[in-house]
Amino acid sequence: MIYLDNAATTYPKPNMVYESIMEAMKEYGANPGRSGHRLALKAGRAIFETRELICKLFNIDNPMNIIFTYNATDGLNLAIKGLLKPGDHVITSSMEHNSVLRPIKTLEKVGVKNTIIDCNIDGSINLEDIKANITEDTKLIVTTHGSNVTGTLFPIKEIGKIAKENDIYYMVDAAQTAGVYDIDVKDMNIDILAFPGHKSLLGPQGTGGLYIKDGIDIIQMKEGGTGSKSDLLTQPEMLPDKFESGTPNTPGIVGLGAGVRYILDRGIENIRKHEQDLTSYFIEELSKIDIVNIYGPKDIIKQAPVVSINIGEEDSSEVSYVLDKVFNIAVRPGLHCAPLSHKTTKTFEQGTVRFSIGAFNTHHDIEKAIEAVRNICSEI
Amino acid sequence: MIYLDNAATTYPKPNMVYESIMEAMKEYGANPGRSGHRLALKAGRAIFETRELICKLFNIDNPMNIIFTYNATDGLNLAIKGLLKPGDHVITSSMEHNSVLRPIKTLEKVGVKNTIIDCNIDGSINLEDIKANITEDTKLIVTTHGSNVTGTLFPIKEIGKIAKENDIYYMVDAAQTAGVYDIDVKDMNIDILAFPGHKSLLGPQGTGGLYIKDGIDIIQMKEGGTGSKSDLLTQPEMLPDKFESGTPNTPGIVGLGAGVRYILDRGIENIRKHEQDLTSYFIEELSKIDIVNIYGPKDIIKQAPVVSINIGEEDSSEVSYVLDKVFNIAVRPGLHCAPLSHKTTKTFEQGTVRFSIGAFNTHHDIEKAIEAVRNICSEI
Repeated sequence: MIYLDNAATTYPKPNMVYESIMEAMKEYGANPGRSGHRLALKAGRAIFETRELICKLFNIDNPMNIIFTYNATDGLNLAIKGLLKPGDHVITSSMEHNSVLRPIKTLEKVGVKNTIIDCNIDGSINLEDIKANITEDTKLIVTTHGSNVTGTLFPIKEIGKIAKENDIYYMVDAAQTAGVYDIDVKDMNIDILAFPGHKSLLGPQGTGGLYIKDGIDIIQMKEGGTGSKSDLLTQPEMLPDKFESGTPNTPGIVGLGAGVRYILDRGIENIRKHEQDLTSYFIEELSKIDIVNIYGPKDIIKQAPVVSINIGEEDSSEVSYVLDKVFNIAVRPGLHCAPLSHKTTKTFEQGTVRFSIGAFNTHHDIEKAIEAVRNICSEI
Repeated sequence: MIYLDNAATTYPKPNMVYESIMEAMKEYGANPGRSGHRLALKAGRAIFETRELICKLFNIDNPMNIIFTYNATDGLNLAIKGLLKPGDHVITSSMEHNSVLRPIKTLEKVGVKNTIIDCNIDGSINLEDIKANITEDTKLIVTTHGSNVTGTLFPIKEIGKIAKENDIYYMVDAAQTAGVYDIDVKDMNIDILAFPGHKSLLGPQGTGGLYIKDGIDIIQMKEGGTGSKSDLLTQPEMLPDKFESGTPNTPGIVGLGAGVRYILDRGIENIRKHEQDLTSYFIEELSKIDIVNIYGPKDIIKQAPVVSINIGEEDSSEVSYVLDKVFNIAVRPGLHCAPLSHKTTKTFEQGTVRFSIGAFNTHHDIEKAIEAVRNICSEI
């Protein structure tokens, strides 16, 4: 199977990811941070190493500011709901995933105001629109780094600058970019960064994380055993314990560490170049086919390796079905859990056929995908 | 290493657990319930199979009433906070873990009342105390099935009966019992059941679950992509999607399924008998040593395979340290994230040295542990 669904989850993972997970389970499958015996300590150290690797990747000083979560959605909910209070105002964009939009819409019920900025048809955002919508109640700006529908990259450094100048927190949803694009929380003035572990960071499913800058008052969503301050009936305030209740996903986090290590070893710029080359070629070839509509910027400088298309008026699910059944190519059809993105890009009715390219795709994969699209087009 | 810290997490897991996780990652590492291609469908089916296996174990009719969570704490928070509203009253016990007590204490701030029933020194609860504390505002009773400190088993069927008679929901925290003790949600009138995946269900860390009976109005803690109703900015109401936002831990859930399959194959009563025999022998032998204080019922009918002890006035951390370093035995010392349990059992100052026995411990392990305790005692 040619797997071009890497925006949903990357597949395969580097071998060292599989191996490290197996080692964690078989060699030191204890509960980290609870007991004090050697297996528990080894598990605890392995988790700490993953924190350190993530810090290296995102230029974060303190590993304790990394919170491990179940997935990116978990972290986004924690930060959005834990930070915003009735009367606060949040600015976001129409290109966000439901993991950002749904929590924000839920908070409307308790009086948290929001502005959802309409993006351009290629998914891009106008910085002036952000500035124009800042009010004295604006506490948070949250945007994607790259759209999961069109791949459109957001100018996060520029948005971070606007946020800083206006004394507003900036949260980035790096679901589609962490592990491929440079993210420097200090240089970019990112206060909160949410990322999945199982996408381009190449870890397993069941992992995600949140960086929270020091001094941001976020209320925890859950309380429980933290292995610290066990004498108290109240949640400890120190990070990461405040936000990490219960037994963590040790093997998953170890696997995530191996994924990040792979990225640091291979070089994030090399991975990016590889994915950009394939994406660029893919867009170029598809552009030559008349009845193929490509959404988004169609420019690899402005776009992550996510390419959404439609073939004429064909149903996107139908096209994806044929790609799977006839051509053995895995893509995702329909609405990609981001309804306003589809309204923005005028694909709400038809959905899109989304091809998403990963670190292990080859030129041959892309050739095959182009050939398949050509074939489907010629049958219509 | 002799691993007697199974109450923290079981180790090792059955081989089929490791193998199934590896297979899920390597053979069909796609995102379930999102795309429609064959790998995604296979991942979705594998998750559904785990739901079915859990239903079989707990006598649950509908697999869609199983919610997968990050750990038991995650599920407990979801149910406690999602169910209770200002003005409601909840009854719980002093033997609960902080994953129950801390959320309940947090809810005090928004006007959710609680009664924490003081248990007896062996950790047992008096049913009359539950009945006596029911008020017209009592909406929920939540108790552990087995204490994580003393192993004390709670009469959950009897408590379920009281709850039903008084039209109150009953939630059971099965962290220490799921996979070893019979749990029948129908026969026992359990409305909500929270369980970890990585303890006696023999799945990997990063898994847990919640059974929610039909018709119970619980508000979700998180919103996000569910792969369903992607056109809406509001969370879908159907289970399990309402409570399962974002990418699930597919390999972990598959591993949990393999763990449950192992239990069903070996027979839960056989596992229980094995653990009871070892625990019984362990208690019997330790009882012969004068300066060893054993907490809890000291009766295998009333106690799960968790044995908390102290040696004279020795610091529990010190004893555990020696067990690890000198005797290569892994246990957990101190306060076990359950402060009121320690107050109840008069071990709040000293903590306890907790030995917890699992499905893969052998008679030899127990002999070695007894020998080690004898040795430490003779050195004092």
